[in-house]
Amino acid sequence: MLSVPPDFEADPEAIHSGAHALVGYDVDLTAVDGSARVTLEIEAKHLNRNGTLHGGIIAMMLDAAAGFAASRAQSLTGFTQVVTVSLNTQYMAPAKSGQVTATGRMSGGGRSIVYAGAELRAPNGRLLASATGVFKRIRDRRK
Amino acid sequence: MLSVPPDFEADPEAIHSGAHALVGYDVDLTAVDGSARVTLEIEAKHLNRNGTLHGGIIAMMLDAAAGFAASRAQSLTGFTQVVTVSLNTQYMAPAKSGQVTATGRMSGGGRSIVYAGAELRAPNGRLLASATGVFKRIRDRRK
Amino acid sequence: MLSVPPDFEADPEAIHSGAHALVGYDVDLTAVDGSARVTLEIEAKHLNRNGTLHGGIIAMMLDAAAGFAASRAQSLTGFTQVVTVSLNTQYMAPAKSGQVTATGRMSGGGRSIVYAGAELRAPNGRLLASATGVFKRIRDRRK
Amino acid sequence: MLSVPPDFEADPEAIHSGAHALVGYDVDLTAVDGSARVTLEIEAKHLNRNGTLHGGIIAMMLDAAAGFAASRAQSLTGFTQVVTVSLNTQYMAPAKSGQVTATGRMSGGGRSIVYAGAELRAPNGRLLASATGVFKRIRDRRK
Repeated sequence: MLSVPPDFEADPEAIHSGAHALVGYDVDLTAVDGSARVTLEIEAKHLNRNGTLHGGIIAMMLDAAAGFAASRAQSLTGFTQVVTVSLNTQYMAPAKSGQVTATGRMSGGGRSIVYAGAELRAPNGRLLASATGVFKRIRDRRK
Repeated sequence: MLSVPPDFEADPEAIHSGAHALVGYDVDLTAVDGSARVTLEIEAKHLNRNGTLHGGIIAMMLDAAAGFAASRAQSLTGFTQVVTVSLNTQYMAPAKSGQVTATGRMSGGGRSIVYAGAELRAPNGRLLASATGVFKRIRDRRK
Repeated sequence: MLSVPPDFEADPEAIHSGAHALVGYDVDLTAVDGSARVTLEIEAKHLNRNGTLHGGIIAMMLDAAAGFAASRAQSLTGFTQVVTVSLNTQYMAPAKSGQVTATGRMSGGGRSIVYAGAELRAPNGRLLASATGVFKRIRDRRK
Repeated sequence: MLSVPPDFEADPEAIHSGAHALVGYDVDLTAVDGSARVTLEIEAKHLNRNGTLHGGIIAMMLDAAAGFAASRAQSLTGFTQVVTVSLNTQYMAPAKSGQVTATGRMSGGGRSIVYAGAELRAPNGRLLASATGVFKRIRDRRK
C-alpha cells in the first residue's frame, strides 16, 4: 500500500521497486510536516538468526524513511529522487512481532546534499533503532 | 548455499534465517584468514527505484559479512553469536547486475565488543560500498 | 566553568581533563531532563583552514555532550564514567563566531552499552552539526 | 612541522589553522601512494578524564588525515580544499603516551563527493581507532 501526497506529480510507480516488493513494507508520504513513514508487519521471512527483525531490513526501512523525507524536502511539489551516500544505523532493542514504523525527517542540507534521519518504533512507542544519513539529489537528466 | 569451516561446531542452521532465505545470498566461512564472504547474484527483486542494487540489501550483506567475521573471531572452534550494535555504511558506486561479494573482517575489540568491517565489490574488483560496525557478543545462556 | 547537579557525588574534578582545558568549553549538567550541555565561545584557536569552527572540536563537543548524558543516565545519584565506542558526526553548517551549544541526550541502551546523541546549535537555534554515539560503561574497579 | 609534496602549488599556509596549532600535530603529505599522515606526540593537554588521548583529538587527527587524503586525490597537482560532510569514528584501544600516527586514504568518490578513511596506530602498529568519512569538494570561487 502506498499513500502519496495530493500534489504528488511524479509517477507513483517511482516509489515502487523490486526490493520494496520483496520485503513488503508500506510507505506513507502524506504527513503535513514533511516526514515520511514506512511501516512493516513483521513476518517469519523478516527474521534473523536470533528470531528478531533482521538488521538489514531495519536498515532498509530506516534508509527508505529518511530517503523519502529527503526527497520530499527537495521539492515543493512532490518528489525528487535522491541516492544514499552514507547511512549510520544504531540498534537499540530487538523486535519480534507486530507492526513497526520508521519515521524519517530531514535535518539539514542544501541544493545537492541532504541530511535526514529516521527512527524505528514499536506500537507502544519504544525506540528500536535509529539512523542518520547523508543523501544526494539526483539531477533529472531529462531536462 | 552455505560453506562453513570444518571445525564448525554449532548447528549449521545457526546461520540460516528467514531474511537470509528472502534475499538469497550465499555465505562462505571457510577462509583461513578468518574473514567471511557473502555473495549475491543480483536479480530484479533486489533492485531499488533507480534500478540498482537496493541500499538496504547492501547493508544486509555488509552487516552479515562483518557480523560473521566477528562471530568467527570470538571463538577458536567455530562460531559465537553476535548482535549488531551499530553499522555505518558508505555507498560508493551502484551495481546493476552480476555477482557481488561482501568480505568481512574483524578489526579490533575484546571480550564483549567486537569491531568489524566489510567491503562490497563487483566481479572486476571495483569497490561498491563499505561498512564499519560495532558488534556485541551474546553470552550463551544455556551454560 | 562547570555546573554540576546538586546530587553530584563524584569529585567534580572527574569532568576536568587536559583536553577540556585546552579547548576551553563549559559543561552544564544541571538540566532536570537528564540532558548535558557543552558550550563554547568561538576563538581564533578553534578555527580550521576554512576559517570556521574545526570539525574535530565540533566532534569533541558532541562527544562530550553525548557522553555526559550517557554518564548521567547510568546513575541515579550523579555520574558514572563511560568511554566512547563509536561516534558518527554529521556537519550541516559552518560556524564562524559567537557561542555554540551542544546538547546531549541518551536515546537507549542497558547495563553496559548506552546510546546517546547530541546536537550543536548556533545562538539563533540553527542546527550546525549532530552526532550519534555508542558508549560503554566503565565498571568502577574500586568497589 | 609540515611536509608537503614538491608539486604543492597552493600556499602551504593552506594547511595551517588555529585548531591545528592548538593541538600541535604534524602533517606529512609526501607519500607517493597519495595517503596523508598526521602524527602527534601525546602530552598532558591531550588527555581526557580517563588519562588517555581524548576522543575528540583522535577524531580531529582522523578527520585531518582522511580529509588531506581526499584533498590530494582531488587534484593532480597538489591540493583541493574539501569539507567534512560526515565522519564515523570507532575507538578500539586507548593511548596513554608516545607518538601516534593517523594515516588517511581515499576509498572512492567522484567530482563532488569523496570517500576517505583513516587509521590511528601506536608506534608498535596497534590499531587504536579508525574512521570513515564523506567529504565534499569546495569549488574555488576565484575562478
